[in-house]
Amino acid sequence: MNPVNVINTINSQTEQGITEVYLVACGGSLVDMYPSKYFLESEARKIVTGLYTANEFVHATPKRLNKDSLVIVCSHGGNTPESVEAAKVAKENGAHTIGLTHNNEAALLSYSDHAFVYEWGADTDVKNNPMAIILELVVETLHVTEGYAHYEAFQNGIGKINGIIKKGEQQVAERTKEFADNYKDEELFYILSSGASYGHAYGFAICSLMEMQWLNAASIHSGEYFHGPFEVTDKETPFILLMNEGRTRVLDERAKTFLGQYAEKVEVVDAKELGINTIADEVVEFFNPILFYSIMCVYRAALADVRNHPLETRRYMGKVSY
Amino acid sequence: MNPVNVINTINSQTEQGITEVYLVACGGSLVDMYPSKYFLESEARKIVTGLYTANEFVHATPKRLNKDSLVIVCSHGGNTPESVEAAKVAKENGAHTIGLTHNNEAALLSYSDHAFVYEWGADTDVKNNPMAIILELVVETLHVTEGYAHYEAFQNGIGKINGIIKKGEQQVAERTKEFADNYKDEELFYILSSGASYGHAYGFAICSLMEMQWLNAASIHSGEYFHGPFEVTDKETPFILLMNEGRTRVLDERAKTFLGQYAEKVEVVDAKELGINTIADEVVEFFNPILFYSIMCVYRAALADVRNHPLETRRYMGKVSY
Repeated sequence: MNPVNVINTINSQTEQGITEVYLVACGGSLVDMYPSKYFLESEARKIVTGLYTANEFVHATPKRLNKDSLVIVCSHGGNTPESVEAAKVAKENGAHTIGLTHNNEAALLSYSDHAFVYEWGADTDVKNNPMAIILELVVETLHVTEGYAHYEAFQNGIGKINGIIKKGEQQVAERTKEFADNYKDEELFYILSSGASYGHAYGFAICSLMEMQWLNAASIHSGEYFHGPFEVTDKETPFILLMNEGRTRVLDERAKTFLGQYAEKVEVVDAKELGINTIADEVVEFFNPILFYSIMCVYRAALADVRNHPLETRRYMGKVSY
Repeated sequence: MNPVNVINTINSQTEQGITEVYLVACGGSLVDMYPSKYFLESEARKIVTGLYTANEFVHATPKRLNKDSLVIVCSHGGNTPESVEAAKVAKENGAHTIGLTHNNEAALLSYSDHAFVYEWGADTDVKNNPMAIILELVVETLHVTEGYAHYEAFQNGIGKINGIIKKGEQQVAERTKEFADNYKDEELFYILSSGASYGHAYGFAICSLMEMQWLNAASIHSGEYFHGPFEVTDKETPFILLMNEGRTRVLDERAKTFLGQYAEKVEVVDAKELGINTIADEVVEFFNPILFYSIMCVYRAALADVRNHPLETRRYMGKVSY
């Protein structure tokens, strides 16, 4: 499937063009949607967006949902009951649905007008992973409905990001081992970021640390840090700061300065240092989270290794009923 | 100032009615805005909303912002630099601004077309506190621009909520002391909720626990809990579950059932048990967070008391430069 064709097809089936894009998923898949929410909230003049954890979309369905809405639902396994139900609710309300999953047999596909059965794994080009596909879908939606001035620059970025990541992964290989050695006995981490990457700060906390390592974790928006959370800062509490390139970098820099003064356990992962600046200034900020996802996978693998806690270990997910 | 008059005045100054409402603040004041974001995202068919931490609004200003936008900015002290700057940015873009503060001399007032200098403290009626005022402003905006079917029921609820809270505060007085005794040595809490109250789960974590008690804390959406975070659940980790009445109660109930089985340190604060059901079904969900804010103030006061850590204690906020 091709994002351009899919969006053009859907748009031609609406009365006045797509009027809203709902991004609906759970956990890690919801994290993959955050950059798209940020992009549309920042760039759109007409298109409306909403980001929902699937069960809230099912039980508190927005009244705005209508036959000119596009609902994008993502579920890696494709059978998460509330995500499947969300796609069903979208269809019942006459909306257009796009489903993304890694599973060819997914129940989600039954309620998807269009489907992307995406690639997964370290060998794939990130442009074929859900975070980039969803971002391409919303960029295309903006472009065909109201125009997007930086469309070419964005497409250029899509062509470059995988190469930047491959270099970045090598660049951090040693550093992630040091990180894992230094932090292997910690029981709690705070993850800071801003802009398009805030969703990934949340994702690293809830998926990589809580789910995969049974470690306590919380995300903090770099802008919010100074309005409450920073009072827990001390020399013992570990912070990971995902520093964006782009308009919200100044927020991350402010957090870095404060942490440099009052904290001692601080790991800074800087998109600029990792070479993201070969992507054009007008669009670079939207690519930070794609870079961070892959780079933080190296961090979590190093941590899992030294902690002898494989990333696949679960005690509840898929093991007990809930 | 009267929310009805203010919204009518602003609406009459727009070309086609207010088209979007931006809710912009930091920390605790941002928390006060979440119910309004939830309300508009759920109920509106035309009006668009966006919730922003102030510094992100300043540095990544949404392109949609225009002369028919309403920007509501809240700052308790009224001089938070990024909140004042956000109101200034809103004005520079031709938008209408409403400022809320407890401070008559606030810099925020310089950029507020209309201002609410609100009451504060345990003796005030909550309808005169910012969470309710902002909710009234957005309900009024919806009502005058596209109509709101449950407007009367909502106004009825505004008339009732303070009485419900007063009874609820008495009802939990003993329980909060037991809670404080049982949990006084804990160093981390997870706060769960959903729907209109998710913002307050975040608020209790970042303001009441992190800022005021220097305790580690994180909010988890009840719907997201099962998609990562629940893997940290064990008999030692404390959870506070804010159970809503209304459409998302089913999400909170699912979390309660799971916690009942796998956790042992669980404090359930149930809006239904606290008598919120005298408010009409169609609107009750929007009042949960107003109730929770006041009830959780009793909890945090009990905790502060037994921990000998007064709620006003700060090490950084207002004490060092940042």
